[in-house]
Amino acid sequence: MIGDMNSTIELAERGAARIEWIRSRMPLLARARDELAVSRPFEGHRIGMSLHLEPKTAVLLETLVAGGAEVVGTGNHGSTQDDVVAFLVRGGMTLFGRRDDTLEEHLAHVGQVLDSRPDMLLDNGGDLAAGVVARGTADEIVGGTEETTSGGDRLRGELAGAVSFPMIVINDSLLKAIGENKHAVGQSVVESFMRITNLMVPGRRFVVFGYGWCGRGVAHYLRALGGKVAVVEVDELKAFEAALDGFRVSEAEGVAAWGDVFITATGHPGVVTLETIGLMHDGAVLANCGHFPWEIDVEGLRAASTSRREIVDAVERIDLPDGRHVILLAGGRMFNLAGTEPKGNSLESMDLGFLLQTLSLERVATGAATLTPGAQPVPDDIDRTIARRMLGELRADS
Amino acid sequence: MIGDMNSTIELAERGAARIEWIRSRMPLLARARDELAVSRPFEGHRIGMSLHLEPKTAVLLETLVAGGAEVVGTGNHGSTQDDVVAFLVRGGMTLFGRRDDTLEEHLAHVGQVLDSRPDMLLDNGGDLAAGVVARGTADEIVGGTEETTSGGDRLRGELAGAVSFPMIVINDSLLKAIGENKHAVGQSVVESFMRITNLMVPGRRFVVFGYGWCGRGVAHYLRALGGKVAVVEVDELKAFEAALDGFRVSEAEGVAAWGDVFITATGHPGVVTLETIGLMHDGAVLANCGHFPWEIDVEGLRAASTSRREIVDAVERIDLPDGRHVILLAGGRMFNLAGTEPKGNSLESMDLGFLLQTLSLERVATGAATLTPGAQPVPDDIDRTIARRMLGELRADS
Amino acid sequence: MIGDMNSTIELAERGAARIEWIRSRMPLLARARDELAVSRPFEGHRIGMSLHLEPKTAVLLETLVAGGAEVVGTGNHGSTQDDVVAFLVRGGMTLFGRRDDTLEEHLAHVGQVLDSRPDMLLDNGGDLAAGVVARGTADEIVGGTEETTSGGDRLRGELAGAVSFPMIVINDSLLKAIGENKHAVGQSVVESFMRITNLMVPGRRFVVFGYGWCGRGVAHYLRALGGKVAVVEVDELKAFEAALDGFRVSEAEGVAAWGDVFITATGHPGVVTLETIGLMHDGAVLANCGHFPWEIDVEGLRAASTSRREIVDAVERIDLPDGRHVILLAGGRMFNLAGTEPKGNSLESMDLGFLLQTLSLERVATGAATLTPGAQPVPDDIDRTIARRMLGELRADS
Amino acid sequence: MIGDMNSTIELAERGAARIEWIRSRMPLLARARDELAVSRPFEGHRIGMSLHLEPKTAVLLETLVAGGAEVVGTGNHGSTQDDVVAFLVRGGMTLFGRRDDTLEEHLAHVGQVLDSRPDMLLDNGGDLAAGVVARGTADEIVGGTEETTSGGDRLRGELAGAVSFPMIVINDSLLKAIGENKHAVGQSVVESFMRITNLMVPGRRFVVFGYGWCGRGVAHYLRALGGKVAVVEVDELKAFEAALDGFRVSEAEGVAAWGDVFITATGHPGVVTLETIGLMHDGAVLANCGHFPWEIDVEGLRAASTSRREIVDAVERIDLPDGRHVILLAGGRMFNLAGTEPKGNSLESMDLGFLLQTLSLERVATGAATLTPGAQPVPDDIDRTIARRMLGELRADS
Ligand SMILES: NC(=O)C1=CN([C@@H]2O[C@H](COP(=O)(O)OP(=O)(O)OC[C@H]3O[C@@H](n4cnc5c(N)ncnc54)[C@H](O)[C@@H]3O)[C@@H](O)[C@H]2O)C=CC1
Ligand SMILES: NC(=O)C1=CN([C@@H]2O[C@H](COP(=O)(O)OP(=O)(O)OC[C@H]3O[C@@H](n4cnc5c(N)ncnc54)[C@H](O)[C@@H]3O)[C@@H](O)[C@H]2O)C=CC1
Repeated sequence: MIGDMNSTIELAERGAARIEWIRSRMPLLARARDELAVSRPFEGHRIGMSLHLEPKTAVLLETLVAGGAEVVGTGNHGSTQDDVVAFLVRGGMTLFGRRDDTLEEHLAHVGQVLDSRPDMLLDNGGDLAAGVVARGTADEIVGGTEETTSGGDRLRGELAGAVSFPMIVINDSLLKAIGENKHAVGQSVVESFMRITNLMVPGRRFVVFGYGWCGRGVAHYLRALGGKVAVVEVDELKAFEAALDGFRVSEAEGVAAWGDVFITATGHPGVVTLETIGLMHDGAVLANCGHFPWEIDVEGLRAASTSRREIVDAVERIDLPDGRHVILLAGGRMFNLAGTEPKGNSLESMDLGFLLQTLSLERVATGAATLTPGAQPVPDDIDRTIARRMLGELRADS
Repeated sequence: MIGDMNSTIELAERGAARIEWIRSRMPLLARARDELAVSRPFEGHRIGMSLHLEPKTAVLLETLVAGGAEVVGTGNHGSTQDDVVAFLVRGGMTLFGRRDDTLEEHLAHVGQVLDSRPDMLLDNGGDLAAGVVARGTADEIVGGTEETTSGGDRLRGELAGAVSFPMIVINDSLLKAIGENKHAVGQSVVESFMRITNLMVPGRRFVVFGYGWCGRGVAHYLRALGGKVAVVEVDELKAFEAALDGFRVSEAEGVAAWGDVFITATGHPGVVTLETIGLMHDGAVLANCGHFPWEIDVEGLRAASTSRREIVDAVERIDLPDGRHVILLAGGRMFNLAGTEPKGNSLESMDLGFLLQTLSLERVATGAATLTPGAQPVPDDIDRTIARRMLGELRADS
Repeated sequence: MIGDMNSTIELAERGAARIEWIRSRMPLLARARDELAVSRPFEGHRIGMSLHLEPKTAVLLETLVAGGAEVVGTGNHGSTQDDVVAFLVRGGMTLFGRRDDTLEEHLAHVGQVLDSRPDMLLDNGGDLAAGVVARGTADEIVGGTEETTSGGDRLRGELAGAVSFPMIVINDSLLKAIGENKHAVGQSVVESFMRITNLMVPGRRFVVFGYGWCGRGVAHYLRALGGKVAVVEVDELKAFEAALDGFRVSEAEGVAAWGDVFITATGHPGVVTLETIGLMHDGAVLANCGHFPWEIDVEGLRAASTSRREIVDAVERIDLPDGRHVILLAGGRMFNLAGTEPKGNSLESMDLGFLLQTLSLERVATGAATLTPGAQPVPDDIDRTIARRMLGELRADS
Repeated sequence: MIGDMNSTIELAERGAARIEWIRSRMPLLARARDELAVSRPFEGHRIGMSLHLEPKTAVLLETLVAGGAEVVGTGNHGSTQDDVVAFLVRGGMTLFGRRDDTLEEHLAHVGQVLDSRPDMLLDNGGDLAAGVVARGTADEIVGGTEETTSGGDRLRGELAGAVSFPMIVINDSLLKAIGENKHAVGQSVVESFMRITNLMVPGRRFVVFGYGWCGRGVAHYLRALGGKVAVVEVDELKAFEAALDGFRVSEAEGVAAWGDVFITATGHPGVVTLETIGLMHDGAVLANCGHFPWEIDVEGLRAASTSRREIVDAVERIDLPDGRHVILLAGGRMFNLAGTEPKGNSLESMDLGFLLQTLSLERVATGAATLTPGAQPVPDDIDRTIARRMLGELRADS
């Protein structure tokens, strides 16, 4: 077992090293850590959490612990970074899960988190809240936060009524839509396109599907870098906005033969169909940045192909019966999290999102009475506090 | 009286000539005119109207008449264009008012409109609706439209309950916010700054007050033309948005000495104070594009001045006791409607806004039962119809 | 004659008023005026000049007089502004010409300028230099400046050898290309398009002919305002530059049906042909900003038309036999100098150009020996001095 | 030795795999390969070459071989990629050198290339040309190309006269300045900044040193992504250009405390001094993209530091005695070639640069008589041919 111990120590060291740079560039959490270390709002609370376990999340968890929290948690299935877990466990947190967990193992870990009887939840997709409801232990919960819009939908849908405690939905914050979905995803998508493909952006023809928060960001940043950008959007009001923003706005068929790179950002399935792909020119590039890997009909495409293979990391060449080929990035999954050493959203945008988490959890701990049961947006004063702090950190006034 | 008749004919001819170009570039209204000439939804309706009487409005009124309406109306105080009125009256409308009317005369005209017992209202600022309520003739009214947000506020405030008929508030439409407040005002403000001052934009330092729809447009278009732009905004969420959009964001004092041109777009009084002006450099330029002439403290400024005079059209030099001077555009009134031959918002943006009017009035005439009493937004399907038509007219897909 | 005198006084007053704002915003010339009033480099020199006589030129001439010069001059044919002349004559200059002069009268005025036996020239198009050569009085001339590239070509062509004195060609300066041709014309063209037509820029489809200094500016500023811009350019290196700058780059036929507004900036004749116009959609707008009114085939177009008439100032509707019509701005002449109250290039860009004139004339007066006979570029140290001063006036460092 | 053979095969396979994607996205070279395979201009020629040996170069070399060339070459010291070499050697080229060569070994390889008695040169920095001159074998050389400006300077300086054969200097081409220095480096620098640091670009304050081709690109792309950008430039004409392009333009001291990230692109030593660093705020980031690692005073900085260490790949934290620290990227070497998996310039920009090489070498082989001895620019018709082909490949007209 000594070998194991050594390798755990090594793992934890590696985690520590990777977190250092990141922590040093998350000043909003740093300040919160200092403040919470004095006020200790989470003293006596056990926070059950379920969130992507990577270095940025580690800085959030350190902040909660500094505020007195006991953290018991697990990651998302398949994305847990073992060195980060090793580092955090060494620091005293109770975390379940490894990168290679099977789905059953993962679900067992969610159960273990609930077994620990947390009285606060840091949820992601509604799994913890649903578990609490299923176990009938909702009255043990002071409240919590939910990271995603789809978790929020679940709280307002199937779990409505059953969730007797306040759950603040982080992703509904306008701050997050602007800071993360528009600007951070926009930046991350152009960075990833360049990093993965090494192709030239200026003068290239891009088609962006969706002109919501993410699509707006992607379309703007691609054009800013000299790309020619067309937008496909089913909502005519957003299509109108895109047109006045100076973009070509068309149905997919109208730009399929024109476009060179096709990027989906709609959150909806089946957006790029086999039919549309049939109109594209030889060598067209397909990529998705929406949450689910369903926006491009990858299955249909692969089924229709005569051969396919990964040429370089995250770049798959798919040959079609008519002699054309298309290039699929990251197998249709979020391509800004793919390829060698993906960075994901910028540190500052995550700092912002995690301060939303931190101050919302603090509100739950210290002012649950000011909240209502069930899903609700981030309290306005928290949004404003964070906006002000972020303006300060950016030194926006100079 | 023959002289008078001649001059009226001449006036009407002049009006006709000025309207021709404008009408030819309002394709949304042209199409509506054709359609309404067939469906005749306003047959038997008398529309009492109060709206800025200038060439673009004329095209709206022609459209309503083509749809069968009888139009009885008056303009805004002080902005009525006599040639346009002469032209429209010759065409059969009943319009009261001249450019030089006193305020009493103007109010009398509003009364005259109501005297005609209209059954529909095309209102502006709530004056007609308030008059109807005051006269107790609300039950004669099928419904109508209100152009402005402040009129909408009045309908929802002092007139709430008393207004038993539906009033669709045009300015609340997102289409209008984007098409007019952001893009058309943005365009118009940069055009007017260049037209009035003949100053260079690239490299110049602008401070924009307000980052609402108009402020966003103004800030973006100035920067697009190479200006260096700082934003002053009291709402921290919008300030945050401006910062991520790449603008310097500061309190007024932080950029008063830096800025060279100061443009207000807040809708609030007293935004540029004497104190802030006291920090500006010699020759700073002050301009407002908000609705009311109260955003810059013009009275205070003039009172504090040692001398002042209009150097060229809409450009006033105001000398201050400490030897500095500032330049005030258009006396602090909306400077994009000032100077020699101001053009106002682009034809297409007005075409859009007036189609919102037309289709909303059509809905009132044909589907009042689908509406609720009092102020309400433009029905969603109308917004979407117009967005689609505008995309078509723009040939956005090419 | 008292009436005449009165009207001259009135005219001079009007000129004075129009010049005041302009003079107050030409700080480079203001500083030069102060410096030259001390050094008096033009003491004893008579400068024969021929330059567009409008308010900005007046500030240049005042500066030369402050430096001790005696000015004897005339304007361009057809563009002389009588009030400006009246003002300058009152101040002691000898100026010939009025707005309504016939071509003969104008040529006679050029002769009168030469009759005065100037020893320095401020030339425009090479007319004065050619006159001096023709009269055989070249040895009386110390040297001078030539404003235009075509004047420079003449000096290097037909007049080569015959011009025994140094002539500094102002328009060859890189400073001028950037400050005037690119940025000032770009700004002026978008301003004029909006001012003359009142059409919306964002989302509109523009085709720019030529991607030289002017074309680059026009294309960039139109796109900056949200326009969709294609470039037509015969030089493949510049076409390549335009493509990497993100523009669509095509032959005229490829974008004739796509475009909505066509703007020429090539300096070459016959760029927009009847054939290309034949491909345009109904209502296309044609405009030129090149120096000569020959870039659009206006004659051919008018000859082919079934009817035509000016709808509003500088906006001509030309109906074609096939039922389509096109809109021609300013009759194909530089449309940024057309319409009601054109402003021309920004004050600061003219300040820059005229300081080039002033310091070049100073160099001729004080250091002719350092110059060579005939056409030559602005001495490098003058370009650099002016660049530094302009950076200072712009407060570029803040 | 079987192990060795196996590992070489494996190495060559890896090289082949890495080259496939790249080759598939270099269409200009693909077309040249097809054409040269027919015309065989290099038949009977041995090209001695010295160029960075990485996958993109491999595609160039394949093209020369397709044209009949025998290639004998070596790489730059320290940057040779062994798998690429293995792949090319397997294909029949004679290449010397490995990544780990000492400087002596590298210089010996240059000698080996010359020992092979090439009759054409593909040079880089002038080493081969200088070697030929030193050996007195210049008369064996038909001619060649020189990749770099500094090699060109050497040919025009110390080697002037001695080089009796034509050497076409690739880097002097305007095409390359625009396509590579401005756009490709601009793109690569923003990509690398994001990839290496994971920091947010919008709203961040950048100071760019130099406004030459690279600096222009860097400044424009950073601003396009929402960065606030100041420019430091010693040449006042370029400083003026930057100011009119809307950048803040300042001396280093004026923006040292303001800036957050400092990027050098001047080609000159000692641009960021210890003095300037002394004014920066805690945590400022320093990076260089100029060719030599001398623009930031790294030695002085490290000498002055209390401690320093690499936190993550290419990110070095340097602590200063006064308690502040700075972050140095890539040790002051070109940071767009640093970090994990740097991509370097975009494939299309390299395709362009290598077609310049190919067609220039073809001209040397087939038309040396049309060239002059010594350094000279790329023949104009080649530039134009390539511009046209690139426009075609970009499908710039759509
Ligand atoms: N890659 C990343 O790092 C991130 C990804 N996301 C994901 O990106 C996706 C988009 O998010 P938001 O922009 O915030 O959502 P949104 O709801 O604001 O925008 C989506 C837009 O797509 C449009 N749309 C729907 N179906 C379409 C179709 N068939 N064709 C064209 N347009 C269509 C909708 O009308 C809407 O305007 C979501 O899946 C979200 O989870 C969000 C944040 C980070
Ligand atoms: N409107 C104004 O206020 C001003 C007008 N100008 C005028 O603008 C014109 C252009 O000036 P610059 O841009 O400085 O000249 P330039 O020589 O830099 O650019 C002209 C460009 O047009 C291209 N060209 C020539 N024939 C063409 C054709 N048939 N189709 C497409 N492109 C073609 C050339 O290749 C060249 O790139 C000149 O006539 C100049 O006098 C200059 C300054 C002010």
